[in-house]
Amino acid sequence: MRFVIIGGDAAGMSAASRAKRNDPDLEVVVLERSKDVSYSACGMPYNIADPGRDMDDLVVRHAEVFRDKQGIDMRLGHTAERIDRGNKKVVGRLAEGGSFDLPYDRLLIATGANPVVPDVPGKDLDGVLVLKSLADGRKLKNYLANHHVSNALIVGMGYIGMEMAEAFHERKVAVEMCDILPRPLPWMPEEMAEAVRRELEDKGVQLHFGARVTSIEPQGDRKVVRMGDREAVVDVVLMAVGVAPASGLAADAGLALGPSKSIAVDRSLRTTDPDIFAAGDCADAFHVVTDQRVWIPLALRANRAGWAVGDNVTGKSVELDGVAGSAVFKVLDLEVARSGLSEAEATDAGFEPVSTTIRSRSRAHGHPGNQTIYVHLVADKRNGKLLGGSMVGKEGAAHRIDAVAVALHAGMTVREFFQCDLAYAPPFSPVWDPLLTGANQLLKRL
Amino acid sequence: MRFVIIGGDAAGMSAASRAKRNDPDLEVVVLERSKDVSYSACGMPYNIADPGRDMDDLVVRHAEVFRDKQGIDMRLGHTAERIDRGNKKVVGRLAEGGSFDLPYDRLLIATGANPVVPDVPGKDLDGVLVLKSLADGRKLKNYLANHHVSNALIVGMGYIGMEMAEAFHERKVAVEMCDILPRPLPWMPEEMAEAVRRELEDKGVQLHFGARVTSIEPQGDRKVVRMGDREAVVDVVLMAVGVAPASGLAADAGLALGPSKSIAVDRSLRTTDPDIFAAGDCADAFHVVTDQRVWIPLALRANRAGWAVGDNVTGKSVELDGVAGSAVFKVLDLEVARSGLSEAEATDAGFEPVSTTIRSRSRAHGHPGNQTIYVHLVADKRNGKLLGGSMVGKEGAAHRIDAVAVALHAGMTVREFFQCDLAYAPPFSPVWDPLLTGANQLLKRL
Repeated sequence: MRFVIIGGDAAGMSAASRAKRNDPDLEVVVLERSKDVSYSACGMPYNIADPGRDMDDLVVRHAEVFRDKQGIDMRLGHTAERIDRGNKKVVGRLAEGGSFDLPYDRLLIATGANPVVPDVPGKDLDGVLVLKSLADGRKLKNYLANHHVSNALIVGMGYIGMEMAEAFHERKVAVEMCDILPRPLPWMPEEMAEAVRRELEDKGVQLHFGARVTSIEPQGDRKVVRMGDREAVVDVVLMAVGVAPASGLAADAGLALGPSKSIAVDRSLRTTDPDIFAAGDCADAFHVVTDQRVWIPLALRANRAGWAVGDNVTGKSVELDGVAGSAVFKVLDLEVARSGLSEAEATDAGFEPVSTTIRSRSRAHGHPGNQTIYVHLVADKRNGKLLGGSMVGKEGAAHRIDAVAVALHAGMTVREFFQCDLAYAPPFSPVWDPLLTGANQLLKRL
Repeated sequence: MRFVIIGGDAAGMSAASRAKRNDPDLEVVVLERSKDVSYSACGMPYNIADPGRDMDDLVVRHAEVFRDKQGIDMRLGHTAERIDRGNKKVVGRLAEGGSFDLPYDRLLIATGANPVVPDVPGKDLDGVLVLKSLADGRKLKNYLANHHVSNALIVGMGYIGMEMAEAFHERKVAVEMCDILPRPLPWMPEEMAEAVRRELEDKGVQLHFGARVTSIEPQGDRKVVRMGDREAVVDVVLMAVGVAPASGLAADAGLALGPSKSIAVDRSLRTTDPDIFAAGDCADAFHVVTDQRVWIPLALRANRAGWAVGDNVTGKSVELDGVAGSAVFKVLDLEVARSGLSEAEATDAGFEPVSTTIRSRSRAHGHPGNQTIYVHLVADKRNGKLLGGSMVGKEGAAHRIDAVAVALHAGMTVREFFQCDLAYAPPFSPVWDPLLTGANQLLKRL
């Protein structure tokens, strides 16, 4: 039996390795259009921050290792162009020229996501960059190495934008950021988003809100970016407005799509064709809180889904519970974390949300190094169930959010969550952990 | 109605404040034998570490504030000696001389715990100290201020001993520690306890295992401590072998006792006399994993139980789910955390435990500042339920354990826990969080 995988990153290589380990006799072929497989895309901002580090440090395992040690048939420079479901084959072209035509018994689409670039004049200028693939990362890092870059504009204030603000800051590149929205992190309560804004501004990042890029013009080596009546003159523009699922192949093959045109999969990661799976940033997932389909492209899910596909093509029967949309990122010295639904998402999903936002401390009263920490919790007024949470703080937010994630997976009520015996010691928490203080405040509104 | 509380620390003052807030007409009387109420006992090691800080910084709220702002009748220097259940009154003596006799309608026993001091010759010498009450803390801090203290022996390697090792280390006092056991933290797998031992020794702490103190003799201002055939000559001896519930009053009044002679209470914190409650370090609790009575004296439970008593004496009906025994402490630069049952405790409770210990990293592969982190998880082979976990690491252990605590409260299986969507970003975790890696390893043994 031949298992063909389109895309050799997190989901694809997890599936390949797992399937081959489960069944060494299985023929596993990976089609990857670039020359890079299995790298830590999430690590790119931190690698870029350090001029002394090689970008290729982010490669977790090289294609030769997959080929030689694991017996996986790695075909780099292979771009899949069409899935012929009738004849069960993948048709495509080779980077070196020519085409290929490969029959499959089981197929995994793990094509990931593509960066969205606003269609504005000047978007193709040299020094207007994106950051999604390792090739993008190399290009950006080389640009910084080979040009005099004293300032940069980041278009978009999602987590890639935020992480790159830190990376540029580390490299002494002055940073401006713009977003079409009136404030950062719209899923977060205003008070908490304000703490993020303050952190960026305190570190010298200049912010433009309600600013849509209308054009980019060259000015020598520099770029003049117009945002309505405002403008920024910078050496580099990073487009970080978001990503879209690379679902074209699946759509053309007539497979059903889910939210945001991601590929719809069931809990076994099967598409509407039972011989074709999809996993990673191109595919959707069930949300553990709503039980509805969502598209939340994140690394853990990609690895987990790839792994499950590897199991399911080798005779096991693995179903995934779903995602809670747990995410964390660092904004300079601030930790920002979330899990589950925001209040607006809860309303959209048909819940009757109530929420609270509290300000507490990261350590016990009077303990040196104590920092402000914000907790926002959302619950359903009808049954008291916890629906989501977010946190911001200079310490203690990143890992605390996992307690919220577990509570969401367990379907806990706020009352049950409030009863949880969380660990306390003065260097790590007040006696009543900020999460418990938040839960107690929220209980009063239920 | 008069609500009398014996003991004015965490549980007692939580109950007093809550009851008075719920019902301003309630007469609330607090009998406290010392002059200190409502202080952060857990903060003492960190306060002692800093000679510039006043010990009284640890007082959360002074007696006058409770009296003047909250209308609570605070009676300091009142030692309760007997509970006369027939006549519903508390009999005792005053620090200033004389006795008192106070009728109650509802009574809360919140007498806490007392330090256990091994009965060895020399235990009453000047400079042989304990650390439980704020008075103990003042005495120790004054001793450090008024004597030339170049080294100290800590007897006992529980969390107070560990925290005090750090405090002495901060004050440039050379530390020796001894314990009758062959290694530190017996509830923890050997590999993890070894990491704790290394951290102590790397920072210059000299450790004596299998060492029982047999005598303490004065040598000028110094103390010669004999431990069988070994000896230590030190300026200060800190006895930190543990605490015992202060349940004498309750026992003498014929109330039922629970584990370790703590006062047995139901989920409403009622003793076997329905008009008498007990809360805090003197009382027991139900364990959420075993549903059996346990005595685990910790600060969050004391506050939570006091609060529930305040509710229950004012007409509400609050039941507590129980404790998971979640605890965290800092050992110099190491975070040590646990929740739920150890493997031995699981066996004792009648489970069929299987466990795993894994070594992972605190951050993503190659991320600067990455540290080793250990995860130990225990499950029941019969139904796959998670029973407990512990962690050790220079970062990322303290808050991660809360995810385990929530899973234990929810009664999750290891499979369910492994499915949890924990948050990932390179500065905070590998893609597969160490908890998930641990859960995955444990699944293989189930």
